[in-house]
Amino acid sequence: MTSSSSTGTTYSPTPRTTGTRARDRFSYDRELVHAILDEGYLCHLAFVRDGAPVVLPTLYARVGERLYVHGSTGSRPLRDAGRAEPGMPVCVTVTHVDGLVLAKAAFHHSINYRSVVAHGLAHQVTDHEERLAALDAIVEGVVPGRADDSRRANPKELAATAVVRLDLDEVSAKVRTGGPNDEPEDLELPYWSGVLPVSLVYGTPIPAEEPAADTPVPGYLTAR
Amino acid sequence: MTSSSSTGTTYSPTPRTTGTRARDRFSYDRELVHAILDEGYLCHLAFVRDGAPVVLPTLYARVGERLYVHGSTGSRPLRDAGRAEPGMPVCVTVTHVDGLVLAKAAFHHSINYRSVVAHGLAHQVTDHEERLAALDAIVEGVVPGRADDSRRANPKELAATAVVRLDLDEVSAKVRTGGPNDEPEDLELPYWSGVLPVSLVYGTPIPAEEPAADTPVPGYLTAR
Repeated sequence: MTSSSSTGTTYSPTPRTTGTRARDRFSYDRELVHAILDEGYLCHLAFVRDGAPVVLPTLYARVGERLYVHGSTGSRPLRDAGRAEPGMPVCVTVTHVDGLVLAKAAFHHSINYRSVVAHGLAHQVTDHEERLAALDAIVEGVVPGRADDSRRANPKELAATAVVRLDLDEVSAKVRTGGPNDEPEDLELPYWSGVLPVSLVYGTPIPAEEPAADTPVPGYLTAR
Repeated sequence: MTSSSSTGTTYSPTPRTTGTRARDRFSYDRELVHAILDEGYLCHLAFVRDGAPVVLPTLYARVGERLYVHGSTGSRPLRDAGRAEPGMPVCVTVTHVDGLVLAKAAFHHSINYRSVVAHGLAHQVTDHEERLAALDAIVEGVVPGRADDSRRANPKELAATAVVRLDLDEVSAKVRTGGPNDEPEDLELPYWSGVLPVSLVYGTPIPAEEPAADTPVPGYLTAR
């Protein structure tokens, strides 16, 4: 991706200066980071195993200035996060693709996207209430309205679930929008240039084959 | 994501045994890995910097048993990949989300997805012809038909572009399909269960504001 029209922003939840401009920027950046995170539910979580990087897709949710991911207590990275002191170094990246940018020149082809990259030390969450809230947030992140419309985890399920937290201390957003950035000398070339918009769409809900299959499709699915 | 109905497969491009079954499985797995990779163009590339993981979104393409990514020669990971011997440890992950799986129980909520995870040592590509082929493949991966319908990179642009290769030696695919896997005792609960399909869609091409704006929209965009 070329970055000529992208903007990168970084914030710390604690403003680093007391100047008005820094406060404004902090506020703006935080809202941007939150908006990008809240639109998604699938992140790519990276960690280091035996000196080599590993990156896996997983569900996440944001609650305030914290990101949560969950998984089986039997999964190695989550187990390691529980043991590591002062925490397991991770990187969590969330990316939304908004368009394919076609320029006159191959070199200037790009993607319109919004991404957030968060670095830090992941910790296992052991507080019962925080675990419950995080699991609800992950379900709500995938399907808003669903946490209250499903059976919540029982003690056995909770015991099998690891919840890991990453505080949003070191986080940045990067956004590319707009059309291609072609060289002036390329503008007359006879190649179409512009943007092909990309979006995620949700189809018609497919009910499971089960005894209660006559359960009406909830509004939070059809409205999506 | 629960993994109860997911399947994971791993292959080495060189079959490890000469048994018929191993050959068949190798063939099947390779096709699955290739199909998942070829459907996408955005990967998440992870590497280790100062002992901590970093994962960034970037474009990629597959050519045979090799993955290529590109970027500015000024970007640090790509520069490091050029210097590192015997190569820079990376992990490349490609994920397609196909559906949201809503179960009776929050615990059994999941995502239908197809992902490929490739590990190995990344190398800078220095061979001129291989670089050109990789750059064409990346453009074609984003918009099939576009490499021949745009201006290819000139020497100055080529000099500013780093191309990095990862051989598909250690690669695995993971796929989850189908409906929720609920517990028998949950089946009568009055919550809708099933799958909400998810797909990427491409909208109406938006032409750039430029002198040749009357260039017709190419068929490879409208057919998408």
